[in-house]
Amino acid sequence: MRSLNINDPDFAKRFRRIVDDRRESDSDVAIQVRDILREVRQRGDKALAEYSMRFDSHRLSTDEDWVISTEQCRAAYDELQPDLRDALELAATRIRVYHEAQLPADRDFTDDAGVRQGALWRAVDAAGLYVPGGRAAYPSSLLMNAIPAKVAGVERLVVVTPTPKGESNPLVLAAAHVAGVDEIWRVGGAQAVAALAYGTERIRKVDVITGPGNAYVAEAKRQLFGVVGIDMVAGPSEILVIADKDNNPEWIAADLLSQAEHDPSAQSILITDDETFAAQVEDCVDLQLATLATHKVANESWTSHGVMIVVDELSQAVELADALAAEHIELAVAEPEPLLRAIRHAGSVFLGRMTPEAVGDYVAGPNHVLPTGRRARFASGLSVLDFMKRTSFIELGDGALDKIGPAAVALAHAEGLPAHAKSVELRLK
Amino acid sequence: MRSLNINDPDFAKRFRRIVDDRRESDSDVAIQVRDILREVRQRGDKALAEYSMRFDSHRLSTDEDWVISTEQCRAAYDELQPDLRDALELAATRIRVYHEAQLPADRDFTDDAGVRQGALWRAVDAAGLYVPGGRAAYPSSLLMNAIPAKVAGVERLVVVTPTPKGESNPLVLAAAHVAGVDEIWRVGGAQAVAALAYGTERIRKVDVITGPGNAYVAEAKRQLFGVVGIDMVAGPSEILVIADKDNNPEWIAADLLSQAEHDPSAQSILITDDETFAAQVEDCVDLQLATLATHKVANESWTSHGVMIVVDELSQAVELADALAAEHIELAVAEPEPLLRAIRHAGSVFLGRMTPEAVGDYVAGPNHVLPTGRRARFASGLSVLDFMKRTSFIELGDGALDKIGPAAVALAHAEGLPAHAKSVELRLK
Repeated sequence: MRSLNINDPDFAKRFRRIVDDRRESDSDVAIQVRDILREVRQRGDKALAEYSMRFDSHRLSTDEDWVISTEQCRAAYDELQPDLRDALELAATRIRVYHEAQLPADRDFTDDAGVRQGALWRAVDAAGLYVPGGRAAYPSSLLMNAIPAKVAGVERLVVVTPTPKGESNPLVLAAAHVAGVDEIWRVGGAQAVAALAYGTERIRKVDVITGPGNAYVAEAKRQLFGVVGIDMVAGPSEILVIADKDNNPEWIAADLLSQAEHDPSAQSILITDDETFAAQVEDCVDLQLATLATHKVANESWTSHGVMIVVDELSQAVELADALAAEHIELAVAEPEPLLRAIRHAGSVFLGRMTPEAVGDYVAGPNHVLPTGRRARFASGLSVLDFMKRTSFIELGDGALDKIGPAAVALAHAEGLPAHAKSVELRLK
Repeated sequence: MRSLNINDPDFAKRFRRIVDDRRESDSDVAIQVRDILREVRQRGDKALAEYSMRFDSHRLSTDEDWVISTEQCRAAYDELQPDLRDALELAATRIRVYHEAQLPADRDFTDDAGVRQGALWRAVDAAGLYVPGGRAAYPSSLLMNAIPAKVAGVERLVVVTPTPKGESNPLVLAAAHVAGVDEIWRVGGAQAVAALAYGTERIRKVDVITGPGNAYVAEAKRQLFGVVGIDMVAGPSEILVIADKDNNPEWIAADLLSQAEHDPSAQSILITDDETFAAQVEDCVDLQLATLATHKVANESWTSHGVMIVVDELSQAVELADALAAEHIELAVAEPEPLLRAIRHAGSVFLGRMTPEAVGDYVAGPNHVLPTGRRARFASGLSVLDFMKRTSFIELGDGALDKIGPAAVALAHAEGLPAHAKSVELRLK
């Protein structure tokens, strides 16, 4: 953990180093992924079967080896403990309601020149959703990706997920049932992403691929950007907590650790205006770490990437927050509204002392798939728009071409495009 | 040019070949681009100067070698012929009005559980716009990229453009003046895109990069996706004209050629329900090609990629159009509305006999930067949203945590994330 004070003589330099720290592995993943994509594109299901054997010790032979049926998902749901089933349903309902309000309106208007213009929004035909098999196999993630797709109107929603040694996670299957997933294929890794993008004998291709994954999955999505639509490149998770001294240090420590326990590369940052409070939080973090079941991961994250910054007053946090462009920001202060308005770059903001970030991970409603690694400078969380596309349209009414056509002719000639000019000129009176 | 009839025994196979035809070069561009990006990242302006000398015969030494000033843009505007100046202004005004209506509304509501949720849209701080130097140096393209950025509220809009042997295009500079571009740097190619993404000594980095370019520029943008935001990967342009026999074949021929003259890889496709009309259009294309100043390019495009498809009735065109997912579709029929509603995948649709696609290139208002290469299946045209991002927020009011918190605790435990659960449990009464 690094401690900084805004009045340190080398503060600017040390803070810049934290901002620029990538926390992402630069490796030769790209080359391996390129090979895997090519193999799946050329050899389809045969390549998938070979990779699944090699990476997941899972043999793809019979239909049951390939597919988890919607009946199996329903059975997993039915067998859940009632409180978990209720929790899944509450989460799903709240996520659905929030995302339904995101559905964009079509446009259709005619201006004074007689030019009708507008745009129609439509869902993509098919979407693919990557669901990790290991530590990061989160049912909440499935809901957060699948529900916006279904709300958008996607007819065919396909999940790919590795089942190492044949094992799958019942809670994930139950979530797939709740979200209305249409197909689940038991393949993972870059090869599964390739199958979704190119299609194979068994798996029909999709138009958009979303969902979290390891470095291979992320790189496969990056390389296939343009072949299909993909959501933003995702890196390790991060939280920035901005807190005054009137908080319970135990609560704030738990919030910092809730991020740290995700991933050894996750980052938790506290900005406070009180040195004593910072020390109290640090003590609470150490205490809580000692008994945490996820100690190993959380401790590695906190030790390597944790940061505490003491400022003179919290208004100084705005500039630091914009530089960090964090995935999550908690504003644990009595009056969070001015800070919310002042901070320009953040994935999602949690207001007040009673809004721990974890409620946003599960049940608040807004999407928990958010831009990481400073990408909130330019990217947004997942939404129904990621599963839709816009078709614009233009219709020239009586006399409209005579009003705007001559300008098009002038520009076309100036650009050296005579056929453009001619297509308008022929129609002018 | 290929002629198909929907009743040909091998129609499905031949049509599928047209749909799958990529028209894009698979070359070793990726490796060269990777090297260029690395050099610019490591050596900054020195690398830029070396590449500009090598690729553009342009020496970057004095400030004037590096920058085109806003004063030079204003001078270029002042020296334009009045009709061209008016045409630029008309285009800019119409584009601005259309895009202003795209500005998204913020959300802020509190539900029955006492959970306040919403989202704030904000512009990115800085956007970079690539403007090609050669054949494709279109002032209309500059307007179509720059105006949405400015409407979004981007404070710093940076153009990069190569000036081979020091030469620039006065009409492009005039368009930059009209659109309110803030900086113009005289660099091009993949190296210019790298400079925008990573920043150099002279050029501060940006958050989003858009704009057309050659294969190197497109590949650089693809590789930098995630480091910055980028618009969709762009390929060669295409038009699909759906026309009945009651059209003037001369007009339709001009429309097909207006696409073909863009690029030898561009594609023009006619679908009609009348064989005689198809033959007439073909004759008109040949006649117009003979005297076209852009004959070489248009002829190569039409010969290699042109397609004419005769169907029994135009309703059959819907399925074909969805498979082609064309950048532009003209519906040259008396009643275009049912076809507009039925076709699901298209970048932009031009309705009726009096709406040639070229008006959309310049003055109609909607954006002419549209998804190509079948990407209208999942992608949209450029809009103000490409220069904005959404920050969601959540605030739990009195008692809200008691209502939704227990479900979050249950899910967190089920996912094996005890610190998540604890951050909620500590705050529950």
